[in-house]
Amino acid sequence: MKKILSFLRKNPLYILLAALPFAILGAIVGWSATTIFVFSAIAIIPLAGLIGASTEILAHHTTPKIGALLNATLGNAAELIITIVAIREGLLELVKASITGSILGNLLLVLGMAMLLGGLRHGIQQFDRKQASSNSIMLVLSVIILLIPSLLSHYIGDIETPEPKVEALSLGVAAVMIVLYVLGLIYSYKVIGGPVVADERGESAPAQGWSLKIAIGVLVFATIGVVIMSELLVGAVEPVIQMLGISEFFIGVIFIPIIGNVAEHFVAVQMAIKNKMALSVEIAIASSLQIALFVAPLLVFISLFMGNPLTLIFNPLELIALIAGVIIAALVSEDGESNWLEGAELMAIYLILGLAFFLMPT
Amino acid sequence: MKKILSFLRKNPLYILLAALPFAILGAIVGWSATTIFVFSAIAIIPLAGLIGASTEILAHHTTPKIGALLNATLGNAAELIITIVAIREGLLELVKASITGSILGNLLLVLGMAMLLGGLRHGIQQFDRKQASSNSIMLVLSVIILLIPSLLSHYIGDIETPEPKVEALSLGVAAVMIVLYVLGLIYSYKVIGGPVVADERGESAPAQGWSLKIAIGVLVFATIGVVIMSELLVGAVEPVIQMLGISEFFIGVIFIPIIGNVAEHFVAVQMAIKNKMALSVEIAIASSLQIALFVAPLLVFISLFMGNPLTLIFNPLELIALIAGVIIAALVSEDGESNWLEGAELMAIYLILGLAFFLMPT
Amino acid sequence: MKKILSFLRKNPLYILLAALPFAILGAIVGWSATTIFVFSAIAIIPLAGLIGASTEILAHHTTPKIGALLNATLGNAAELIITIVAIREGLLELVKASITGSILGNLLLVLGMAMLLGGLRHGIQQFDRKQASSNSIMLVLSVIILLIPSLLSHYIGDIETPEPKVEALSLGVAAVMIVLYVLGLIYSYKVIGGPVVADERGESAPAQGWSLKIAIGVLVFATIGVVIMSELLVGAVEPVIQMLGISEFFIGVIFIPIIGNVAEHFVAVQMAIKNKMALSVEIAIASSLQIALFVAPLLVFISLFMGNPLTLIFNPLELIALIAGVIIAALVSEDGESNWLEGAELMAIYLILGLAFFLMPT
Repeated sequence: MKKILSFLRKNPLYILLAALPFAILGAIVGWSATTIFVFSAIAIIPLAGLIGASTEILAHHTTPKIGALLNATLGNAAELIITIVAIREGLLELVKASITGSILGNLLLVLGMAMLLGGLRHGIQQFDRKQASSNSIMLVLSVIILLIPSLLSHYIGDIETPEPKVEALSLGVAAVMIVLYVLGLIYSYKVIGGPVVADERGESAPAQGWSLKIAIGVLVFATIGVVIMSELLVGAVEPVIQMLGISEFFIGVIFIPIIGNVAEHFVAVQMAIKNKMALSVEIAIASSLQIALFVAPLLVFISLFMGNPLTLIFNPLELIALIAGVIIAALVSEDGESNWLEGAELMAIYLILGLAFFLMPT
Repeated sequence: MKKILSFLRKNPLYILLAALPFAILGAIVGWSATTIFVFSAIAIIPLAGLIGASTEILAHHTTPKIGALLNATLGNAAELIITIVAIREGLLELVKASITGSILGNLLLVLGMAMLLGGLRHGIQQFDRKQASSNSIMLVLSVIILLIPSLLSHYIGDIETPEPKVEALSLGVAAVMIVLYVLGLIYSYKVIGGPVVADERGESAPAQGWSLKIAIGVLVFATIGVVIMSELLVGAVEPVIQMLGISEFFIGVIFIPIIGNVAEHFVAVQMAIKNKMALSVEIAIASSLQIALFVAPLLVFISLFMGNPLTLIFNPLELIALIAGVIIAALVSEDGESNWLEGAELMAIYLILGLAFFLMPT
Repeated sequence: MKKILSFLRKNPLYILLAALPFAILGAIVGWSATTIFVFSAIAIIPLAGLIGASTEILAHHTTPKIGALLNATLGNAAELIITIVAIREGLLELVKASITGSILGNLLLVLGMAMLLGGLRHGIQQFDRKQASSNSIMLVLSVIILLIPSLLSHYIGDIETPEPKVEALSLGVAAVMIVLYVLGLIYSYKVIGGPVVADERGESAPAQGWSLKIAIGVLVFATIGVVIMSELLVGAVEPVIQMLGISEFFIGVIFIPIIGNVAEHFVAVQMAIKNKMALSVEIAIASSLQIALFVAPLLVFISLFMGNPLTLIFNPLELIALIAGVIIAALVSEDGESNWLEGAELMAIYLILGLAFFLMPT
């Protein structure tokens, strides 16, 4: 008990776990959809953080290769679970919006807040120009690949009721993306000697001192927790939309990515404040890359088996926002240094996009 | 008299002031719209130059902070006056075209001519890579923010007869832009210690040796002059369009930005010829930034009070031209050096865009 | 005979010349269109290589200036011949697709394969950052100019049955492009002292040891060969389309650029494997520049005299592919180094674009 209290004092984020029992209680007793929606959303934040923390402990206890594989596949586990539940419910627009929002959130909100707060404390912050430049090239390449089906499907066939040809393009692109993601993992081992991120990041992880046993236990508990909370959250989406008058698109593009990534965002911003800007940029860009090259195509294949085939066809708003976000992140990180004004501009773009998304008709 | 003559010999541009009385005479006597249009346009060129020159003297006589504020707000004063008059007359398309044209003119025509003439005389010209790179990032960010309402409003509501939601997005974006502009000014003081441009630029200003009194007198005279000439110019736009068969769009995008900025363009090109390419690039990019982040949102708010609300929704031609212009300027200035071939290519793009705009149906 | 055999052993590509007599025989005897199509396509590959090789020998035997002019005009001779024949036959869409495909092939397929194979053998490969950056700026500028008529004509007039205004824009842009191409040649002499490429490339050319006489003979033979094969190939396009069910667009954008450039592609990849990455990048980008700034506008003027006026209006698929290809090539080459993962990503984008083009309805 004392241990848990001292853990909570160090990691105040985990107090939010208190929302978990209320979400379950609400579902049993039959509270309003909005209440259940809020409680389950709040509960997902610390659960996603626990998955991340326990994955890192596991990664430490295995060989570096398996560890990296764990990080590479479980890095966005919470988001993956939420979107799989949403696919089962047939909320495909919500899924695509949350893929978009996850990439935008990392590139604009997280990077922006890190550069703003880091820059206010440390002035101009430097990070490895070469690494950053190489990462941002990969990012642009990945997003261009992700967008090709959206840009070209229109000329191939009807995208509203997808023809076989349109689905074939999405599947082909998804297959190529997963191959590239695997090649990227191999590359980072052969040439760079593995991602440095995991080690350094470990320092500030809340999981310090956990044994392997505890880590596995926490991972299982947190994963089950996210699954249950996702069920409650996704089940409440449609009544909430009707009650509050916000669009499904807005929930997908702003709300879900934030709750699924708060814990990770927190780490990236902390790193910037500690003047470890390179790590901060790396976390934000690596996470975007993972969503674009791994989570998105994986969802295409999973959705196929679930009978609700998801195509990689984003709506024009998503396209514009992704293109804008990627160009900016590439430009900002490419010069190898940041300041608070750049941070403010990134956040301003996120704010304006958020406003536009909020004004969208439901 | 002798002083004025010697001033004119050094600054031949100001001979164009002779057009001022003819414009007024023409308006009184009732000459043709085309004649008044031409005389008032010619008169604006030196008047805009006088506003710039006297602002710099004023800036020298105040504290650096107030001086920078003067430069930051009066830097595009002539253009601001012309567009405010045009808003009052309800010529909103003309206003948006001239915002576009001002940014394009700075990035393609001025930068192109500076690189061409500077490069022909000095070969490859260098300028501070870091500063240029940071400026071009800001430029891309600003133009992306400026374009978001155009790109997204279409999906929010009817943009022809703007709905409240579409106007709300424009106002929100305008507010964010002005905040960013102010943050940018603060940043340039806190971190860089103020814009170096003003001082160095002073060297070649025509205002050398003016007292504070003269400077204020010139500023008042020139401002009143620009207001009167703008009235005559804008009043003649519609008859001129019908007579000559050129489109309002062409007048706004090519003609008005040129007459409002000739004096400033002149300085930028002179700097390049004197091999001060850094200053030349800085002038062109800073002026574009000011139009995008300060003049455009200011006009949105002013237009609101004048009862002719201006939205930040540009037509597709303007969007394409702005995106192309900004990408090119960012690329060209980002590598920190220029040559005459790059200058020729920038001017070629301006020429081709001008041709396309000219061929637009009226 | 022995000489020819030893030449073939060193340059196995030229064994494909054996397809030449079969193509002619087939045309005389009346074989199926598909058979003639395949034989003439195969024969063009080595013939295009012979034109390139003999041009380089000629270039060595003249003054450097005339030599450079020869390389600059005959560098894409095979492609020029095929497209002229296609214009005469009125296959204008095929021509525009093959211009697009040629640029994409150089920037994605060739550069990608060079970076992949070079990177697998040598790890991270460096090339001159400055030169590469300057080249990629030129490339972006050129492609933006090339695309302006497509992007803007829509707003000027009907692009299906081109009005005089739409054609005027294409002609104006074509004229500006050729001026820029000539300026670029002058620049490379005045400032850089001529392209270094030709010399170094010569090393591995198959033409080593040819006399001037042989070179002229080979050039004449190969040019006549390409003309005849192009006639057969283009004549067979329409029956082949109907028989195989692939679109004219796919043949133009993937197939024709490959057969016209295999020999050159081969050299670029060989250079990368020999760790001369700078040369490899230079060949790919210079060839793209030549297509965009010289071949495309030349075809506009030639088509005018042939009575089948070609406008520079590309379809949206071509636009998207070109923009994506150029942004990526600029980004990848701008940082002055490459690795096999970047190569794989470039080839992946080519593959996905190819898949999308293949799925296009005929």
